[in-house]
Amino acid sequence: MINVAILGFGTVGSGVAEVLEGHRELITQRTGRQFRVKYILDVRDFPDSPFGDRVIHDFQTIEQDPEVDVVVETIGGAGVAKEYTQRALRAGKSVVTSNKELVACCGHELLQLAKEKKVSYLFEASVGGGIPIISPLYQCLSANEIFEVCGILNGTTNYILTRMIGAGLSFEAALKEAQENGYAERDPSADVEGHDACRKICILAAVAFGRHIYPEQVPTEGITGVSLADVDYADSVGKKIKLLGRALRNGDGTVTAYVAPHLVDQSDPMAGVVDVFNAIKIRGDAVGDVMFYGRGAGKLPTASAVVSDVIDAAKHMNTKKYLDWQEGGEDVCASADSLVSPWYVRAEGSAEALRRALPGVSLLARHGAADSELAFLTGPMSRTELEEKLAGLSFRCVLRVLD
Amino acid sequence: MINVAILGFGTVGSGVAEVLEGHRELITQRTGRQFRVKYILDVRDFPDSPFGDRVIHDFQTIEQDPEVDVVVETIGGAGVAKEYTQRALRAGKSVVTSNKELVACCGHELLQLAKEKKVSYLFEASVGGGIPIISPLYQCLSANEIFEVCGILNGTTNYILTRMIGAGLSFEAALKEAQENGYAERDPSADVEGHDACRKICILAAVAFGRHIYPEQVPTEGITGVSLADVDYADSVGKKIKLLGRALRNGDGTVTAYVAPHLVDQSDPMAGVVDVFNAIKIRGDAVGDVMFYGRGAGKLPTASAVVSDVIDAAKHMNTKKYLDWQEGGEDVCASADSLVSPWYVRAEGSAEALRRALPGVSLLARHGAADSELAFLTGPMSRTELEEKLAGLSFRCVLRVLD
Repeated sequence: MINVAILGFGTVGSGVAEVLEGHRELITQRTGRQFRVKYILDVRDFPDSPFGDRVIHDFQTIEQDPEVDVVVETIGGAGVAKEYTQRALRAGKSVVTSNKELVACCGHELLQLAKEKKVSYLFEASVGGGIPIISPLYQCLSANEIFEVCGILNGTTNYILTRMIGAGLSFEAALKEAQENGYAERDPSADVEGHDACRKICILAAVAFGRHIYPEQVPTEGITGVSLADVDYADSVGKKIKLLGRALRNGDGTVTAYVAPHLVDQSDPMAGVVDVFNAIKIRGDAVGDVMFYGRGAGKLPTASAVVSDVIDAAKHMNTKKYLDWQEGGEDVCASADSLVSPWYVRAEGSAEALRRALPGVSLLARHGAADSELAFLTGPMSRTELEEKLAGLSFRCVLRVLD
Repeated sequence: MINVAILGFGTVGSGVAEVLEGHRELITQRTGRQFRVKYILDVRDFPDSPFGDRVIHDFQTIEQDPEVDVVVETIGGAGVAKEYTQRALRAGKSVVTSNKELVACCGHELLQLAKEKKVSYLFEASVGGGIPIISPLYQCLSANEIFEVCGILNGTTNYILTRMIGAGLSFEAALKEAQENGYAERDPSADVEGHDACRKICILAAVAFGRHIYPEQVPTEGITGVSLADVDYADSVGKKIKLLGRALRNGDGTVTAYVAPHLVDQSDPMAGVVDVFNAIKIRGDAVGDVMFYGRGAGKLPTASAVVSDVIDAAKHMNTKKYLDWQEGGEDVCASADSLVSPWYVRAEGSAEALRRALPGVSLLARHGAADSELAFLTGPMSRTELEEKLAGLSFRCVLRVLD
């Protein structure tokens, strides 16, 4: 019997309990083992829940119960979640989490602790909800030198952009709709300002490149600066605007990681990823491009990933299964400003000055544009070069074009 | 030191040697272990290859060398490949393969033997080339009841259909082009008649549903019956023709599996999968739909999957990692004829008779159609029902519409 304790009985935590107990027979058939939710830790009581009798309020009970094999942490944040994770690992229990904030800030430290205590710290659910991505990247692509990880990592912003593109809603109207549908929080800043995507690209980059990358090291731009004008201009050249988290390995071993909206060509499979779906593309030297697609959030998809990790942890109870990376440092990341790409620019200024700076540039057109508005695509250059060349223009929106 | 023996030094076998040796350092860094290609078994000699000195002609050398830990079988077919696989497993060596024919016909038997001998039999490369799919399905989605597996499983036919759709080439011209580009064999029947996709859906269905399904149990239709007329009609209703392998779990526990060309709506991410790319969609009760996308064949993508399995086998040398399924039988599969779906039909016959049979049917139009040609979409019904209702028509092409 594998005894599981769930920390936090919110959306994901209750989904985990439902999937574990609802699929009791199936999981036993697949693994040859019985799983049981022994405790649920929460500050609240849940008298009406079928799991109500297992709710406790004191973490010590879990920590000191030798029967507990796997602790599922779905509290979120890097405060008490970190403390309980450390205490669970120190008590020799494997920990499974969906907590991207904690993994992004302290993954290296917690993985080291898990290794020391010969237990697992698994976090498939921290990126891409139910989409298998951490394991495939770590395990199925282990024969590859990874060049790039790039993804639509946040469902809320992808929903907002989809509605802006498809229905012509303004950012504000699309955000309001997302909130009404439960796709966006009342305080949407972690999503729309890109911080959620930032944490996820940190985790993916660490798995892909083997060094911890901290959110503070990753320049992060959300979608609040994207207007319908930009959506229209992108459409006029067969492209869609998508918020991407990217991490690229440079020739010198450094990593360039950032989060920003991009223009993505319609022929790219990522352009067709709409609504709250996520997609993550990985480029390896042997495998070429592979992409993983699915629901990036939600109660049951996230629980699917957590429970699969619980099963995996149980399978490796007496063996070593160490997903691992080295500590971070100032030497890990290179500035995104030197990363060369084509650019989309919307600006105010003189068309003559623009033509002098970028000979042969084609201006894009949209219905209802002011006379002084200039929108165009550039050739490949760095951000630094772009700003030097176009110093005479007042930028309104500058986005990379994914090439 | 992990010693590897490669059986068959063709495209995949030589790719495996290149990736294993070319990434020696990276793999050691990731796994803490050294890997070495100790033997390459082939009937030929390769005096000009850097691996030429390791080529041997007698399998016994490998079988009897206790230093060999992992045997890579890239011979193909179910003849000598099966014999060597059995002998390697019996000798206590893990076996990794890209041989879909062998896994589809004898997977259950070989997995049982591996289990008995406490070694691994792994075949990530047998489906989808380098795309991680077997492991994610087995491991990362283990908390799900799987309802359906559906995929573009053959790159050759997807290339041919892409060229028919995009460039208006006839099937014959597109096939010739595929052969010239090295995407199709001189004898293309295994691809264009759907047998390759059939083997792959058998493997996926066994992993997803836990019973062996034999290729003979899977009705298989290739793309030789698809004409440009059908491509045009599909286009007129916003759909693309794709060859799909599908396996669905029925309410009574049986599995409906088949291979056939389908009309796929443009809004489905699979419609955008072009050229030699593959995509596999899995529907689970918790995770919803997830899709895996990438190059489904080729030397290095396939080698990427094989080498990752070699690493995985080495990691689990002293532990159990059993991917497993039950034996097959006549009770496993239900007839695809009773599976309900909308249909696309191109036929000759009387429009009045058609309207009597399917009141309200809309006829599709294309440039250059003969007067007697009728093309239309039906509502959802079984194949049996379709044939009864439309008994008066001479069918030219009947394709399911993916819903």
